[in-house]
Amino acid sequence: MNDTPPLTPDEMLLWQSLGRLVHALPRVLEDDMGRASGMSMTEFAVLLTLGQAPDRRMRMSELAAATGLTPSRITRVVDTLRSHGMVSKERHGSDARGNVAVLTDAGDRRVKAAQPAHLASARRRVLDHIPADLVPALADVLKHLTDATIAPRDCPDAPEPAQPAP
Amino acid sequence: MNDTPPLTPDEMLLWQSLGRLVHALPRVLEDDMGRASGMSMTEFAVLLTLGQAPDRRMRMSELAAATGLTPSRITRVVDTLRSHGMVSKERHGSDARGNVAVLTDAGDRRVKAAQPAHLASARRRVLDHIPADLVPALADVLKHLTDATIAPRDCPDAPEPAQPAP
Repeated sequence: MNDTPPLTPDEMLLWQSLGRLVHALPRVLEDDMGRASGMSMTEFAVLLTLGQAPDRRMRMSELAAATGLTPSRITRVVDTLRSHGMVSKERHGSDARGNVAVLTDAGDRRVKAAQPAHLASARRRVLDHIPADLVPALADVLKHLTDATIAPRDCPDAPEPAQPAP
Repeated sequence: MNDTPPLTPDEMLLWQSLGRLVHALPRVLEDDMGRASGMSMTEFAVLLTLGQAPDRRMRMSELAAATGLTPSRITRVVDTLRSHGMVSKERHGSDARGNVAVLTDAGDRRVKAAQPAHLASARRRVLDHIPADLVPALADVLKHLTDATIAPRDCPDAPEPAQPAP
């Protein structure tokens, strides 16, 4: 019937902990960011990702892949950010299918103002709990795992997975 | 203003990858499980967690902490599972505030039938992407991080964080 080997105790602990974390972590990060800046963590992540991109602009499909959001979700978030003047939307020059999101100066100021709260949340919620000597290996594993998870089906018009700027 | 040290490149990569993963992973796991068993991954995780508990029963607050779900979400999931006869609900013997969820025989059969698909999904989506020699350290970090994330505020009537059975 099925010859996948059962999970070892360490594998089970890893799998179950990850399953709990993916449900619980977004909630505490949204709470942190909402309290500190009045902006959601998802909105902040979109602004930050745009701010790290060349010319502060990305195709919507690349922005979805870079943040892990679905195309429909990224459309809603970008529309909200546009209504607050933090992002503008342009047609992609060479591809009629694609829109490009561009961080405005107002968006850039907003993301810079929220950076200290974001940094404090990243340290307090995640990085403070990871031994320093494990950070490089864990970063490598999570990057690889995330790229494998965000399959091309999530971004049909992106030629390859978008990479966050280093 | 703020003296939190900035993120190193490895810390930034870890943080951004984790941020993408917590959005993207639940979607692919739900898709896998829905296709294979007609049950959501969240429902399966609740049944599996109950099946590993002593006497196949847990207080609702402990079940929320063990799965990373909010109390209101766990209530909705358990109500759905009850309507399908897979879980029953009892009053907690010594504490008028707490309800106890109990896995029924039908729920036990259902979780066993879905196990091969769950196992294949766990391997293909996560464990196959992690070098074997990193699994113990990563399991330990994720367990610690998850326990720190799921603060007591999420389970007000639980005396301490619930642990998944080994």
